[in-house]
Amino acid sequence: MTYFSSNFKLGILGGGQLGKMLLNDTRKFDIHTSVLDASPEAPCKIACNEFHLGDLMDYDAVYNFGKHVDVLTFEIENVNTQALEALEQEGVLVFPSAKTLQIIQNKATQKLFYQDHGIPTAAFSRFAYTNEIKDAVANGGLQLPFVWKSAQFGYDGNGVKVVRKLTDLNQLPNVACIAETLIPFKKELAVTVARNPDGATAIYPVVEMEFHPEANQVEYVICPARIDPKIAEKATQIALKTSQAFNHVGLLAVEMFLTEDDTILVNEVAPRPHNSGHQTIEASYTSQFEQHLRAILNLPLGNTENKTAGVMVNLVGAENYTGPVAYKNIETIMAMPGVTPHIYGKKETRPFRKMGHVTIVNNSVNEARNIAEKVKSTIQVISHS
Amino acid sequence: MTYFSSNFKLGILGGGQLGKMLLNDTRKFDIHTSVLDASPEAPCKIACNEFHLGDLMDYDAVYNFGKHVDVLTFEIENVNTQALEALEQEGVLVFPSAKTLQIIQNKATQKLFYQDHGIPTAAFSRFAYTNEIKDAVANGGLQLPFVWKSAQFGYDGNGVKVVRKLTDLNQLPNVACIAETLIPFKKELAVTVARNPDGATAIYPVVEMEFHPEANQVEYVICPARIDPKIAEKATQIALKTSQAFNHVGLLAVEMFLTEDDTILVNEVAPRPHNSGHQTIEASYTSQFEQHLRAILNLPLGNTENKTAGVMVNLVGAENYTGPVAYKNIETIMAMPGVTPHIYGKKETRPFRKMGHVTIVNNSVNEARNIAEKVKSTIQVISHS
Repeated sequence: MTYFSSNFKLGILGGGQLGKMLLNDTRKFDIHTSVLDASPEAPCKIACNEFHLGDLMDYDAVYNFGKHVDVLTFEIENVNTQALEALEQEGVLVFPSAKTLQIIQNKATQKLFYQDHGIPTAAFSRFAYTNEIKDAVANGGLQLPFVWKSAQFGYDGNGVKVVRKLTDLNQLPNVACIAETLIPFKKELAVTVARNPDGATAIYPVVEMEFHPEANQVEYVICPARIDPKIAEKATQIALKTSQAFNHVGLLAVEMFLTEDDTILVNEVAPRPHNSGHQTIEASYTSQFEQHLRAILNLPLGNTENKTAGVMVNLVGAENYTGPVAYKNIETIMAMPGVTPHIYGKKETRPFRKMGHVTIVNNSVNEARNIAEKVKSTIQVISHS
Repeated sequence: MTYFSSNFKLGILGGGQLGKMLLNDTRKFDIHTSVLDASPEAPCKIACNEFHLGDLMDYDAVYNFGKHVDVLTFEIENVNTQALEALEQEGVLVFPSAKTLQIIQNKATQKLFYQDHGIPTAAFSRFAYTNEIKDAVANGGLQLPFVWKSAQFGYDGNGVKVVRKLTDLNQLPNVACIAETLIPFKKELAVTVARNPDGATAIYPVVEMEFHPEANQVEYVICPARIDPKIAEKATQIALKTSQAFNHVGLLAVEMFLTEDDTILVNEVAPRPHNSGHQTIEASYTSQFEQHLRAILNLPLGNTENKTAGVMVNLVGAENYTGPVAYKNIETIMAMPGVTPHIYGKKETRPFRKMGHVTIVNNSVNEARNIAEKVKSTIQVISHS
C-alpha cells in the first residue's frame, strides 16, 4: 500500500489539539485524512480532507467511519473499542490496536498488565465501588493516605484524587476504582517510544514533568531530564519493555515516578502523541507527530535526538475566567528568545482548560527552564467578556 | 489590533505551496485566514478558514477579496497591484506594499531601482521590444552573449534566456525586455531579510543556491553558505541595504551573484517566503513562514540562527512523465538521517513542475549536502498513468 497517493485514507478518531498538530504532518506528506469528532468546532475541522461528526464512544459512529479508511488511529483513548475490534476483523489497520486500548482504558486492568509483565508499578487494590474502600480502611486492609483512581475514563487528572482522610472519599463518585500506594517521588519522568508494525523502535530522550499542584496537570516538560545518565538508561529500558509488552504500534508515552531511593515505577501510559512530547516539534529532529505517522504507516522511524534542549509550558485557562478566549501578553513572550506559542484554536476558555502550549528551545536546558518561568508568569489565558 | 482573535482576518493572495506552508504557522497561532486562488485544487484549499476562487490579476477579484481582511499578503508576485493600491487607500494593511510589488513586477524598473539606490547589480539595457535587440547588436550597442529577460512576469526561470547567438532571439516573445551582461559567477547566494512595520529587522544566514542547468530552477539550497565570513558579511549588508531601500515589510529574499573577483551583484528579489528559505523549517530557530507572519503582523521577530546546518532539495516532476503524481522511493529517503520530505499536494506532475522539496538537517553542512545528493538520485516524481 502506498500512503502517498489519493487512494489512501488515514482515519483519525478525535479532532482536538493532538489531532490538529498531527494534521500539520499529514499535510506535509500530503496524506489524505478523515477525522471523526463530536464537536462541529473541533480544532481539526479545518486542515483535514474530510470531517465527520460523531460520538467516539458510539459503536455505529466509529464503525461506519472506520469502514472507509485504510489505517485508523486516535488522538484520545475514550473511543469505542468494540467498533475497533470489528474493524480489525474486517481488515482495517487499527494502530494502536483495540486490545492495547482496552487494557489502557481501564486503570485496574492496566495495573494488572504491568504486574503480569514484570513492569515495576506502585502497589494497589481494586474495588468494585468507592464505598467498599471505607470498610477496607476500617478493617486495616488499606492504609491512609492513598491515591484513588476511577477505573474508567481518567483523563488529565479527572478521576484521580489523593485521599488523606476518609471524608475525602465523600466527594468521589461511587464507581469501580483502585486505591494505589501514595509514592513519595523526587521527579516524574516520561519516555516516548515509537514502534512500527515491523517492530522497529525509536526512543526519545527522558523528560521531566512538573505538575500543577491543584489541577494535577502537567505544567512544564523539560527535555532532556536533569538526572543521572544511569537513571535515564533505567527509565529508557523500562519504557522499551513496556512498549514491547503491549506489542505496541505507534507512539507510547510512558509516565514514571522516580522515588527517593531512585526506584522507577510506571504510573501510566498514553498510546498516542502526548503532552510530554510537544517540545519535540521544535527541539527534536523528528516531532512526535511525524514519528507517530511514520510508525503507524510502517515507514522508517525518524531520529529522536534533540537539536537543542526544549522546555514546554502548558497554556491553560486562568482561574476566574470563562468565555471567549484572549491571550494576554502573547506578543511579549514572542519577544523572548526561542519562544514559540502553539494556540489550539478552542473558542472558549475556562479555568485550567488546555488552550495551547509554549515551547522554549535553547542550548542550555536550565536557561530554557528559566525562560519558561518568565513565559508562564507573563502570558495569561483570559476572557474579555 | 489583536491578531489572536476571531475578529482578525489575514488575507493571502495565492493558494500554492508557499501559502500552504504559511498556513501551518497561521494554524499554530490560530490566526483566521482567507485565501484567494484561481484553482479549486489549490494546495491551500484546506487548512485556511475561508477559500475564495478568483483570478489574482483581476482587479475586482482582488479588491473584493481584500476589502474583507485586516492584513493582506501574497505568496506570488503576479497579482493586480492597482487593486492593492485601492485597498491601501481604504486602510487595509497590505504587506509587502503595492509600491514594492510594482517595482519588483517589472524587471526593468527593478534594475533601475537598484541603480538609483546604489545597490550593485549587473549592467543592462532596456528594450521596448525584443526585435530592437538585433539592431543594438548590429550597431555595436550590445555585445553577445547576454541574458535576455522579459520585463513582466518572470517566474521560476520563465522569461529568462541566455542569448549566445542572434538566432537565439527568434524563439523569444517580442515584448518589453532587458538585456543584461552575462556575469560569470562562482556561486549564487541568497539572504532573507525580515522587517516589520516598526522597522525591526532579522537576517537569516547566507545560503548558496545550486541551479539545475536546463530548467534554470534552484536544485539545492545550502545553509550556511560555504564561503569566507567576510564575503558573507558583505552579502548580508547588501541584502539589508536592499530591504531598507524598499522600506520593505515582510520577508525579502535577495538573490545575488558572487563573481570570480568576489564582487557581489544583486540578481533579483522575492518579497515573500522563498524557495531559498525552505530549509529554515527544520534548520532554523524560526521558519521563514513564521517569520513572515511575525513581520507583517508587527510582532517581535524570531531568532534567525540555525539549530543545525540544512540543505534543501527541490522535488520536481521527472522528464517524460505527465499525469497523476507518484513519489517513487519516498520511503527509502525517509530512512536517511535527518531527511524530511515536504509534499505540496499537487495532483498532476509534469516535467520540472515543483511538486515538493526535501530538507536534510545535519551538524555538518557537507554531510547534509552529501545526503542531499543521495536523496536527489533516489526519489523520483513520476506518474503511473
